[in-house]
Amino acid sequence: MPFFNLRLKELVKQRRSWLCVGLDMNPEALGKNDLTGLKEHSFKVIDATREFAVAYKPNFAFFERWGAVGFAWLEEIVEYIGNEHIKIADAKRGDIGNTAKQYAKSIFDHFGFDSVTLNPYMGTDSIMPFIKDKNKGAFVLCRTSNESAKDLQNHLVNGVPLYEHVAQMVKALSKLDNVGLVVGATAPDELDRIRSIVPDASLLIPGVGAQGGDLGHSLKAGNRSGVGLINVSRDISFRGDMSEKAIHKAASGYVEKMRELMS
Amino acid sequence: MPFFNLRLKELVKQRRSWLCVGLDMNPEALGKNDLTGLKEHSFKVIDATREFAVAYKPNFAFFERWGAVGFAWLEEIVEYIGNEHIKIADAKRGDIGNTAKQYAKSIFDHFGFDSVTLNPYMGTDSIMPFIKDKNKGAFVLCRTSNESAKDLQNHLVNGVPLYEHVAQMVKALSKLDNVGLVVGATAPDELDRIRSIVPDASLLIPGVGAQGGDLGHSLKAGNRSGVGLINVSRDISFRGDMSEKAIHKAASGYVEKMRELMS
Repeated sequence: MPFFNLRLKELVKQRRSWLCVGLDMNPEALGKNDLTGLKEHSFKVIDATREFAVAYKPNFAFFERWGAVGFAWLEEIVEYIGNEHIKIADAKRGDIGNTAKQYAKSIFDHFGFDSVTLNPYMGTDSIMPFIKDKNKGAFVLCRTSNESAKDLQNHLVNGVPLYEHVAQMVKALSKLDNVGLVVGATAPDELDRIRSIVPDASLLIPGVGAQGGDLGHSLKAGNRSGVGLINVSRDISFRGDMSEKAIHKAASGYVEKMRELMS
Repeated sequence: MPFFNLRLKELVKQRRSWLCVGLDMNPEALGKNDLTGLKEHSFKVIDATREFAVAYKPNFAFFERWGAVGFAWLEEIVEYIGNEHIKIADAKRGDIGNTAKQYAKSIFDHFGFDSVTLNPYMGTDSIMPFIKDKNKGAFVLCRTSNESAKDLQNHLVNGVPLYEHVAQMVKALSKLDNVGLVVGATAPDELDRIRSIVPDASLLIPGVGAQGGDLGHSLKAGNRSGVGLINVSRDISFRGDMSEKAIHKAASGYVEKMRELMS
């Protein structure tokens, strides 16, 4: 298998899609607090979006909410997605080295994900165990899409915002071309600055859709030379009447728009 | 029930113990990659330390490593600990608001923990959903015990290290007296500075034992007015021949030493 970043690039090129479908399986969005219904819905979302998605990103919180039963469901989902798409574990883990090693075993060996989102606050020790295998990738939180991201991430350290220090730290770590960054579409200026620091790293860009980030800018800034995957969760998974048809149409609409913007 | 911080203070006073037993159930430490043996060992650790511990802190990575089966084991552990001790979910979660809400449901409502460790990188949104209930507490990572903690945490922002900004942010959030901080015993100067910012907040202090942090300093600096819980994991759970007797002796040794230091 090629290095993670290369594999992702090739997949994007083949499919002419930059879409990552976020699986935030929220019972409140489905309108019923029913695990069976939610499970069925998750498989429906995957079926309806296979031809458009490059990657799937299950968000662990929505599975952990149900405890062991939720984790069993997550195991099924990874299996169900199969090997034609990049599977990103949106777990935002970060812990000391020997603990991070266990999280890596969980996400890559047990669940079988291809990549993971990580939190940089504890420094390089906490990232290293996830990036030792060139076939597995990591996306480190850099500038996130939420309102309070700026509380710490935009603080200036020697005149440079903290998120840029994270980008520099991650750049130095990506010896195997398998470490990318998470940058919110809701922070377009920050996205431009980060892209200039890591022109070739893969970016995972959430915040388009329900959070209001701009698709055009995110796509263009994200995909000058490296890949910028655009994550859409709610605006695909719970669109319209939430039928397979509505979800298919939503995913198709996003990808058509992307192709237009990138042509 | 009293506010989280007060409940913890009263428990420390009653037991005359500052010990949090970390449940990092590492198969490599047990010497066999056997889930049944590891499960039995975890219950043995709890039985052997009940009379000495104020709190238990299962580290999620060691359970997630096994997927759904590991989460089922974690559910059993929370049940097994019962209500005479503070149960801290060492999960280091951090995500945008609507996702953090799901993690809070997982940790407090589903598993039944009393408190959780959190990562501050995404700012206040990511902490709020965990601190809305006065009976539930959160410990936010401030200055961690690992070698690379300084990669970001010691960066100077307006002449003040980032971890102090985190302490200030958390101080402002603790309206219900239920938000504390994680500060490593391996960073004694930082511990002193943080204690002066939040004299009354609860601190969770890992890094004593296998990581080499100083017990005396951590205990004294941590417990001037607020509570400073000392976490010990490997040096109790996997001590000596790992028999119930050896573990009991290790826990007893720590607590006797603590009582001596605090008398």
